[in-house]
Amino acid sequence: MFEKVLLSEKVANNIKKLIVDHELKPGDKLPNEIDLAEKLNVSRSTIREAIKILISMNILEIRRGKGTFVCEKPGIATDPLGVTFMNKKDLLLYLFETRLIIEPEMAALAAGRASEKNIRVLEEVFLKLKMDITEGRNHTKADITFHNIIAKSTQNPIIQRIVPIINDSIIEGYLETKDLPESNEKVLAYHEKVLDAIKNQDAEAARNYMREHIKQGMTQISMKKNC
Amino acid sequence: MFEKVLLSEKVANNIKKLIVDHELKPGDKLPNEIDLAEKLNVSRSTIREAIKILISMNILEIRRGKGTFVCEKPGIATDPLGVTFMNKKDLLLYLFETRLIIEPEMAALAAGRASEKNIRVLEEVFLKLKMDITEGRNHTKADITFHNIIAKSTQNPIIQRIVPIINDSIIEGYLETKDLPESNEKVLAYHEKVLDAIKNQDAEAARNYMREHIKQGMTQISMKKNC
Repeated sequence: MFEKVLLSEKVANNIKKLIVDHELKPGDKLPNEIDLAEKLNVSRSTIREAIKILISMNILEIRRGKGTFVCEKPGIATDPLGVTFMNKKDLLLYLFETRLIIEPEMAALAAGRASEKNIRVLEEVFLKLKMDITEGRNHTKADITFHNIIAKSTQNPIIQRIVPIINDSIIEGYLETKDLPESNEKVLAYHEKVLDAIKNQDAEAARNYMREHIKQGMTQISMKKNC
Repeated sequence: MFEKVLLSEKVANNIKKLIVDHELKPGDKLPNEIDLAEKLNVSRSTIREAIKILISMNILEIRRGKGTFVCEKPGIATDPLGVTFMNKKDLLLYLFETRLIIEPEMAALAAGRASEKNIRVLEEVFLKLKMDITEGRNHTKADITFHNIIAKSTQNPIIQRIVPIINDSIIEGYLETKDLPESNEKVLAYHEKVLDAIKNQDAEAARNYMREHIKQGMTQISMKKNC
């Protein structure tokens, strides 16, 4: 039993190495079990064990009816901060406090670095956000996506990973509230100002509007708490 | 086969729920297989599968000869940002750029919130750092620990998790360089100034010295690169 665990973990590491070495790329389909078993010189059941380990590490994913694939962002856990296991008291305020530190500077960097494609996607998400709000739908997802695309626009791979981790924690059901604070008009106005600042490559304006936007959110969370 | 995967994942989720609901706490020993199998009404082999899944998710850990335990920080992956899979070009500069955003504000927060115990531990780590440097040992680990304890001193659970993730990426062997930049005297001087600022609850000084310290590091990385 113990030996088997070790072997499947070793094989999991071998498959991981194929990804690190770019023999397998994000989004690639994994070779079938028989070929892999032959290539790595182990039994098919060991391959299956190893694949299960890699799936639970978010390195591989099963697409129904299509096979096993390398994840688009391999190795990024669903809840890498362990928010599920955190004390929920004041967690939303702590998440916003962290956003207040990172996101204004992130917006400033994005203003200097966003590609044309980044800006096009940002405009699309802004329109989606606007439609969600005007048509009375929940706009949390479009809102968070907007912020995550700004993170992407910094071209910094660390910020690109960290900001979505923080922001997704807000919507992934770890928190009781599904509603983000701020009135809808203000949400729209701030997002539009940040978008314009990034389009105009105005780092200072991007930083300031983002800071005001998040501070405003924090004020509303505090008010709600004290109701 | 497919059914079995689903069942063990379901059981893994059940065990996870015991942790979320605080029936099992970080550091607790897991009940033995027989009791768990009975409690969750599944076979022992399904329990074993579920435990393997939770181990690879860093929720459980095996301590040799002692049994299976809930991790101290359950759910925190070893490389949650997937740095292993990132393009290594300029990664060190991107890591420092991210630190430059977070750590000055983190130091300012810590200056207002550090407990007496936080400060005691910070002083101890500073002395360790000083000894490592004066005795010619590699001081990277003590250096990073110093920064991670400041993160802890913010009392913000999100910052407490994010900052070590960023900083550990620097030393976990993902990067070619094992040497952090900056000359040793400067390292010591900056850390001492940050430590004093936190002890004096001087948020402004803590922010400024931390900013200078990280900027200095970035300058040296850039210089090294251009050699």
